[in-house]
Amino acid sequence: MSTREGQYRLGAFLLNTGHHVAAWRHPNAWSENGLNFAQYKRLAQTAEQAKFDMIFFADGVAVRREHSTDSLTRSGQIVYFEPITLLSALSAVTEHIGLVATASTTYNEPYHIARKFASLDYLSGGRAGWNVVTSATHAEARNFNREQHMDHELRYERAREFVQVVTGLWDSWTDDAFIRDKETGVYFDADKLHVLNHKGDHFSVQGPLNVARPIQGYPVIIQAGASDTGRDFAAATSEVIFTAQQTLADAQAFYADIKRQAVAYGRNPEHVKIMPGIFAVIGQTESEAKEKYDYLQSLIHPSVGLSLLSGLVGGVDLSSYPLDGPLPDLPETNLQKSRLQLVTELARRDNLTIRQLYEAVAGARGHRTIWGTPEQIADQLEEWYINEAADGFNIMPPYLPDGLDEFVEQVVPILQKRGRFRTEYEGRTLRENLGLPRPVNQFSETPIPATVS
Amino acid sequence: MSTREGQYRLGAFLLNTGHHVAAWRHPNAWSENGLNFAQYKRLAQTAEQAKFDMIFFADGVAVRREHSTDSLTRSGQIVYFEPITLLSALSAVTEHIGLVATASTTYNEPYHIARKFASLDYLSGGRAGWNVVTSATHAEARNFNREQHMDHELRYERAREFVQVVTGLWDSWTDDAFIRDKETGVYFDADKLHVLNHKGDHFSVQGPLNVARPIQGYPVIIQAGASDTGRDFAAATSEVIFTAQQTLADAQAFYADIKRQAVAYGRNPEHVKIMPGIFAVIGQTESEAKEKYDYLQSLIHPSVGLSLLSGLVGGVDLSSYPLDGPLPDLPETNLQKSRLQLVTELARRDNLTIRQLYEAVAGARGHRTIWGTPEQIADQLEEWYINEAADGFNIMPPYLPDGLDEFVEQVVPILQKRGRFRTEYEGRTLRENLGLPRPVNQFSETPIPATVS
Ligand SMILES: Cc1cc2nc3c(=O)[nH]c(=O)nc-3n(C[C@H](O)[C@H](O)[C@H](O)COP(=O)(O)O)c2cc1C
Ligand SMILES: Cc1cc2nc3c(=O)[nH]c(=O)nc-3n(C[C@H](O)[C@H](O)[C@H](O)COP(=O)(O)O)c2cc1C
Repeated sequence: MSTREGQYRLGAFLLNTGHHVAAWRHPNAWSENGLNFAQYKRLAQTAEQAKFDMIFFADGVAVRREHSTDSLTRSGQIVYFEPITLLSALSAVTEHIGLVATASTTYNEPYHIARKFASLDYLSGGRAGWNVVTSATHAEARNFNREQHMDHELRYERAREFVQVVTGLWDSWTDDAFIRDKETGVYFDADKLHVLNHKGDHFSVQGPLNVARPIQGYPVIIQAGASDTGRDFAAATSEVIFTAQQTLADAQAFYADIKRQAVAYGRNPEHVKIMPGIFAVIGQTESEAKEKYDYLQSLIHPSVGLSLLSGLVGGVDLSSYPLDGPLPDLPETNLQKSRLQLVTELARRDNLTIRQLYEAVAGARGHRTIWGTPEQIADQLEEWYINEAADGFNIMPPYLPDGLDEFVEQVVPILQKRGRFRTEYEGRTLRENLGLPRPVNQFSETPIPATVS
Repeated sequence: MSTREGQYRLGAFLLNTGHHVAAWRHPNAWSENGLNFAQYKRLAQTAEQAKFDMIFFADGVAVRREHSTDSLTRSGQIVYFEPITLLSALSAVTEHIGLVATASTTYNEPYHIARKFASLDYLSGGRAGWNVVTSATHAEARNFNREQHMDHELRYERAREFVQVVTGLWDSWTDDAFIRDKETGVYFDADKLHVLNHKGDHFSVQGPLNVARPIQGYPVIIQAGASDTGRDFAAATSEVIFTAQQTLADAQAFYADIKRQAVAYGRNPEHVKIMPGIFAVIGQTESEAKEKYDYLQSLIHPSVGLSLLSGLVGGVDLSSYPLDGPLPDLPETNLQKSRLQLVTELARRDNLTIRQLYEAVAGARGHRTIWGTPEQIADQLEEWYINEAADGFNIMPPYLPDGLDEFVEQVVPILQKRGRFRTEYEGRTLRENLGLPRPVNQFSETPIPATVS
């Protein structure tokens, strides 16, 4: 076994009432968490006390369509804060932790997104991060003047241009552009302004941005694409990569693939942090943990499980197939290709019925699910870290607040004792804490060579 | 003179370093206020301690284009927080004050705007307000894939449909839709969901919104249109109306016109609050106040004054006309018609040169400018209130923080002593404090008749 030094990155992936599909039904769960600021404040402060790198909020711009009204009415993920407003509010009640939100490139304009994340970066003193997604559902398209979700390849084309425009807008001003000289009356130095004048296939954006260059240069750029196109995009542009991986071998393959592609793009592979999701159920004994997991599973209504599974396989309605029969062969769709593949492989590998399959993914929607004692959980993280399957982990609490509290109280101290996790924040910004360099302004600064030969 | 009872509404209209065009050059001004959260927090808390109804942030989605690089580099209004993120952060450090931001209907999509204001309403416990604008510059168009700003009438058509979609989305759920019954596993009542399915000339939006019905039903809707079309739109839809008025007579005419039109739309005129802007310079004596005003005026660089004036008259470049000559006849443009008229009338009435005209509008950009002792300022407000020229005032501090602090410390106590301003917040929400009714859900609730005859 190779020995790998260093520390993990940890993110708290907070999803309304928790990640388990029946989370909100747990007697201790905060069932209205999605729209309760006091509860989010408490969770963010808990993650910060534990020195997590970041909290992360996923996002979609529609109510998820379900295959039956019944399953829709049973979902706890229906209404929730818009994540950039929520993170802005949390910036005022936290000091160190990174604040990461998803924003879609398919259903937004780059000027707004550049501006909002730059604004969040100033509000938080340099703690903003953007999870760049291309969205996944027709329901989202239909809230934005379209009938259908945009084609997978076209979405990624648009996403590339979108990120190019956003970073161009973030570079509208050099870091030292604003002089604010009261005597002479000059507010900024005209030479330090770059007007973007972007004209591309998808966007025409003149600029400049009406926010100064973000404190971090750019807020940290994050991606979770899993298809070939998605990985290529992530390797080219992203500094943190979220991913859903089930086995060590798959996670290692993904890790190696992304790092290789990043290097091919001329990037330092250390500047691409791979963080698989971990759905961990913690008990004092392994069997107590398993019981806790089984109890959560028992709360899943069949219509909810079926609907969740349909969502993961690209929207195919599975209700006409026998629940206790095998998963049928499914067509590739325009939606989340890679998730379909993952779920299909899982079903074939373990020879699962439809019901068993939805139970297997109901907790973590395809992410790695583990149960055990705090030591066992810590060992599992260690195994993925030392075997180059992960640079850190996105912790996905099964339900809230207990899922986060238990991890923070029971697992984090073990990681710290083993020297695998910080006991104090190293830096001032999210970038500094993650060990990522501050990007140079693409227009008006050139890196100063370290040596002159 | 009629006697009018009741109390004023007061808003703090906070514009980066202050409203005066040279505000940031004042020795005491917070010249980097636009991106300094600690300073905004202090201002918001000051306004809240004084029991203001609301703080208001204007917005534009571009750096204002200037007629010369020189004037651009001298502007203190170049970079600032995106207002919805800023208000979200301020929601966490205030408890009572209303949080109002501009958002453009021309360069946004209704789903995003409905969602963000609903989210802010939840973050703040029911204190959100939306100033609906149609934007004013070509520079904004060019950040959003257009060459030219949309035509004035078309913008308002789009704005009407936009507001219709947004309120429709806010009514996606009844107030009591979310049951969250852990026992039965039902999260919401299917009968309490309305899917909008809007298909109009400008937007196709399916819905429902992924935020519950806002705490206020709808966040408070505000408008500042001044053209005939703008007034009609305001009278039909808005609950607070901001306006720039210079003389008592003009303000009375505006007030009467809006109230009449609101009544014609079947609305209760009490539910339309008219709040002209007031740019007040306060001194211990009248002459001290005048000196403070003159000092601010002395800080205006000619290129800044000229450029500001060009902006107000619809973008016409005035630099080829003699500074000490009269204002030439100007063409009507597609941009802010009413502001052009206002400025032209002012020049003709007082027979002003171009230089004198820009000095006259430099402080408050066409809003009412007054200087005097705290008592004199209070008297001026009283005059407009009792003569039905205003239901309240949008206070525009010349520079910050002093402009707000002086008003709060010196004028507010006089208004309170006279019984014209609250000493405690009456309600929990912005709507309650303003004395506005909570809107009924247009789809699923009918108002219960007060009496049955
Ligand atoms: C941890 C994680 C978080 C994600 N968050 C979001 C999200 O918030 N919104 C979204 O539309 N997609 C989200 N996705 C989906 C990915 O962006 C991506 O669409 C998906 O992994 C399929 O990959 P592909 O787009 O390359 O086919 C997330 C994926 C992962 C693994
Ligand atoms: C107090 C006040 C605040 C305003 N705030 C904004 C703003 O933030 N953004 C904007 O584009 N226009 C703003 N406006 C401009 C108005 O929305 C409107 O465009 C202008 O008064 C011209 O009226 P018209 O559009 O009916 O021609 C504001 C006007 C006033 C009086």
